Amino acid sequence: MPEYKAPLREIKFVMDELLDMPSHYASIPAYAEVATPDMVDAIIAEGARFCEQELAPLNRVGDIEGCKRNEDGSVTTPTGFKEAYAKFVEGGWPSLAHEEEFGGQGLPESLGIVISEMVGSSNWSWGMYPGLSHGAMNTIDQHGTAEQKNTYLTKLVSGEWTGTMCLTEPHCGSDLGILKAKAEPNADGSYSITGTKIFISAGDHDMAENIIHIVLARLPGAPEGTKGISLFIVPKVMPNEDGSLGNGNAVECGSLEHKMGIHGNATCVMNFDGAKGWLIGPENKGLNCMFTFMNTARIGTALQGSSAMEASFQGALAYAKERLAMRSLTGPKAPEKAADPIIVHPDVRRMLLTQKSLNEAGRALVYFASQQNDIVKKAASAEERKEAEELLSFLTPIAKAFLTEAGCEATNLGMQVYGGHGYIAEWGMEQLARDTRIATIYEGTTGIQALDLLGRKVLMTQGASLRTFTKMVHKFCKAESGNKELSKMIKPLVEANKEWGDLTMKIGMSAMKNRDEVGAASVDYLMYSGYMVLGYFWARMAKVAQEKLAAGTSEEDFYKAKLTTARFYFTRILPRTRMHAATMTAGAASLMDMDVEHFAFL
Amino acid sequence: MPEYKAPLREIKFVMDELLDMPSHYASIPAYAEVATPDMVDAIIAEGARFCEQELAPLNRVGDIEGCKRNEDGSVTTPTGFKEAYAKFVEGGWPSLAHEEEFGGQGLPESLGIVISEMVGSSNWSWGMYPGLSHGAMNTIDQHGTAEQKNTYLTKLVSGEWTGTMCLTEPHCGSDLGILKAKAEPNADGSYSITGTKIFISAGDHDMAENIIHIVLARLPGAPEGTKGISLFIVPKVMPNEDGSLGNGNAVECGSLEHKMGIHGNATCVMNFDGAKGWLIGPENKGLNCMFTFMNTARIGTALQGSSAMEASFQGALAYAKERLAMRSLTGPKAPEKAADPIIVHPDVRRMLLTQKSLNEAGRALVYFASQQNDIVKKAASAEERKEAEELLSFLTPIAKAFLTEAGCEATNLGMQVYGGHGYIAEWGMEQLARDTRIATIYEGTTGIQALDLLGRKVLMTQGASLRTFTKMVHKFCKAESGNKELSKMIKPLVEANKEWGDLTMKIGMSAMKNRDEVGAASVDYLMYSGYMVLGYFWARMAKVAQEKLAAGTSEEDFYKAKLTTARFYFTRILPRTRMHAATMTAGAASLMDMDVEHFAFL
Repeated sequence: MPEYKAPLREIKFVMDELLDMPSHYASIPAYAEVATPDMVDAIIAEGARFCEQELAPLNRVGDIEGCKRNEDGSVTTPTGFKEAYAKFVEGGWPSLAHEEEFGGQGLPESLGIVISEMVGSSNWSWGMYPGLSHGAMNTIDQHGTAEQKNTYLTKLVSGEWTGTMCLTEPHCGSDLGILKAKAEPNADGSYSITGTKIFISAGDHDMAENIIHIVLARLPGAPEGTKGISLFIVPKVMPNEDGSLGNGNAVECGSLEHKMGIHGNATCVMNFDGAKGWLIGPENKGLNCMFTFMNTARIGTALQGSSAMEASFQGALAYAKERLAMRSLTGPKAPEKAADPIIVHPDVRRMLLTQKSLNEAGRALVYFASQQNDIVKKAASAEERKEAEELLSFLTPIAKAFLTEAGCEATNLGMQVYGGHGYIAEWGMEQLARDTRIATIYEGTTGIQALDLLGRKVLMTQGASLRTFTKMVHKFCKAESGNKELSKMIKPLVEANKEWGDLTMKIGMSAMKNRDEVGAASVDYLMYSGYMVLGYFWARMAKVAQEKLAAGTSEEDFYKAKLTTARFYFTRILPRTRMHAATMTAGAASLMDMDVEHFAFL
Repeated sequence: MPEYKAPLREIKFVMDELLDMPSHYASIPAYAEVATPDMVDAIIAEGARFCEQELAPLNRVGDIEGCKRNEDGSVTTPTGFKEAYAKFVEGGWPSLAHEEEFGGQGLPESLGIVISEMVGSSNWSWGMYPGLSHGAMNTIDQHGTAEQKNTYLTKLVSGEWTGTMCLTEPHCGSDLGILKAKAEPNADGSYSITGTKIFISAGDHDMAENIIHIVLARLPGAPEGTKGISLFIVPKVMPNEDGSLGNGNAVECGSLEHKMGIHGNATCVMNFDGAKGWLIGPENKGLNCMFTFMNTARIGTALQGSSAMEASFQGALAYAKERLAMRSLTGPKAPEKAADPIIVHPDVRRMLLTQKSLNEAGRALVYFASQQNDIVKKAASAEERKEAEELLSFLTPIAKAFLTEAGCEATNLGMQVYGGHGYIAEWGMEQLARDTRIATIYEGTTGIQALDLLGRKVLMTQGASLRTFTKMVHKFCKAESGNKELSKMIKPLVEANKEWGDLTMKIGMSAMKNRDEVGAASVDYLMYSGYMVLGYFWARMAKVAQEKLAAGTSEEDFYKAKLTTARFYFTRILPRTRMHAATMTAGAASLMDMDVEHFAFL
């Protein structure tokens, strides 16, 4: 198992030096008092300790044991999961980024994301239990009635209860318009929910005394399609009026899925058999309300890609320094040993630096998105909120799809650095690859995110959404146009930034003639966008490092390594846009010409 | 579980129409009589039946059950594996491509590879047992004494016994120069072998009464490094002079590895504790002899990538035609249904066509390499043999590394087409991805193959090795230079063929100044080469299809689909060379500048 050590220096670099979170927190009235630099540092340090000591040791346990459905239908989580959750609750972690009114600490989401990253790197499967709760809380907070908040939100915030998100059914996932679960109104104002939901993460478990399901279902006579879906709160155990727990509800885990990875998380088939629930938000507007949940979940899933990269990189780096094989092509580097450590070999370094450069800029992207989220939620000025919302909306599909694809690449590179040992369970590297593989699928596949980005966000706004970002890039590049040391970063960034707009225009024009051009270009467009966004953050990180070095610092090595990694990114990773630029403009015909019946002649 | 159906039409296309195997067999005296078109067809049809009916149904069983090490140290394979092997032996399959002198059928290796492909697509883990035997047979055939052949080869050819390949030790895999296993000479001419070997595929099992280990070890006083390694035959059970089985040997499976995939194959830690063995080949030349085994194994592993693509493609295609989600962007295609089948969506087609185009050209490459192998082994003319050997030597690392990387991509795309269901074990798609993941690692990682290609094959021959292939491409393109219908394939092929040489020259020049430039460019160079080689085969396949259509055919759809797939490849896949061309010339500095201690600041 690779030992996880929270990358505190890297976190601090992005938080303080790149994104200036201290000023950001100070500028938002809701956070100015609570998110002071000392407090933020103390929370991150304590979170690091918890992840390193409590969660990381359980990661492989979770993979080996998985979850167990007992004869009575209850679900048991792997050894230690329940105890770790109790400590998590005791430490007040679930309440971190929630409203004080309901028992929360009122701290910013962007601080919560730092904790989530460390949780994710140390034990993603475990982290999904509180992760799903977090989404349920945001949904109830935003759409629930005062009574619903009092009844459910307080218990979720305290961590006594956890939450889930029940969307998918056996016949539909991406296409929720065809979902079948029914909600029949009862005389008391509640509803009876009936239907089968699948792939329900944290759907049932033994870590909390109650589970609050957020469920999509149809009211009688509701319109067909996505406009006839409503959202319901369905508790596992009915709460009494005094807050104590009453009878069990008619909802049960029918079975656990056998999955490639994330074994520690209970992925349940949930059977709702006339379960009692309450409408949340307006009738037939369920999907809109659910988007609150989904957007939280999408940034959360982006974090899965990004946090797995860190874990895999740490494991691969340790092994590459230790494992001996062959001599360096330029002569022995460790002549006293039987062979050189494999980190002397250029190709091993290529793999490590690929992990590292995707990982560090990925963190910058996630934290930046989360910073925008703080603004959306709490900034005083409406204009600032609007701008942040546009930026966040543009970046969400990129962060989700690109960072999870990058996470798959990086965790597979981590295995590859280990050679044969990478394929062996005990080393932990293959678990990271298996666990991460789900991330490009759930919460909307890469294909779905790509359509959201190119179709819904970029083309439907006539490119305005893209321009919120390219303007930022342009402004930065213009300011640095005389910066000779960084010219090899600024120049390709300027070119690609322009090309990005040109490509968008080109696809937009073809899409006017043939709507399939959008789907035909979308994934390449998304990947191109991802490399560009990370390129922007690398250039900015390089600029920070350059300034620190110029000003004089006791951490020369750290900042020089930033510049070296940035150069690697521009030399070795950004050129991938060459391929995506070519293929995204290849046209739909290359995909659509094949007759459905001619794909195979078997 | 995706149902496997042997792609007989595709196999026939490559065998008969692309590579003209009938003439090839007729031209080689050893095969002219035995490998007649009727015989070849009958064997392939029977092999297809065996794979579809006997092996495919055991694929998931193998994954779920895995192998078991019993208290007495013996190993039990999954339910049905042993019985399937008995039928395989009964059908005479192990003897197919081996010499009649030792009980073989004397059929060409290139026919054996067709059977191996179908075995691989239906159940790779099972296929590894006879696969390893095949390599052991080739090694004994080429390097063994007459007595060794009589004692061991006959029993391996009949399938009564199986074989293994014991190279790796806990501290060394790629770098065999530092291996430690010892061989002490005994008075009777035998040797006592002592040491631990790991990752031994099919190392122990219950499918055959004896297992012949081919083992690398050092003689006393042998030179250090790779020049002091000898090769030994070490039977699990000692054969008596009359061919019956005698006492057990001091070799035992110490434990089974817990792996990401290929659970059905027993991957053993093998302990040799003074086990009796016999030298095979000259003293201290073991590594040279082992290369026979490794070259067989490398094409065999290429086949793992290629055969997995077929299996995953079949599964993904079936699902894409059946699964309903969303409407086509250009309007409903199945208005009578709740939604359109997902194959209407461009991005789903992109994934399917990527699988398909890599798969079909991958098959062409493997069969072509195997055709060269026939020539190397049996052609009458020394000149033909030499030419084929050069070509095979150049193509082996490309086939091994590129097709296994492509196999990983394709099996992951197969999962992606299934959405959430792709991550669920019951559908079988994630098993294909897990099983295939080992292929870029064992028998020499992608990095090792890349160094073999660029360093050993291409640069050490001053590019001569590359020219054996580029000349073929050039000749083909020149002949087709007036072919207007194929001009969009021929033109990029001509350009890239020239660029390939230019890039080689450029890297060769930098490597003269700094040897690290080879390692820094190698994997990108290999991937570039792979896309080029497949591009060449696509152009040739397109040419065949064009000719058939021009001549008039009852299979218009089949040949048109070939042209459509070829166009897809040139439009959507070949442009990946743009990225590799840029990164392979990026220089070693981008990788070597980072100080070992500055990769992370934890």
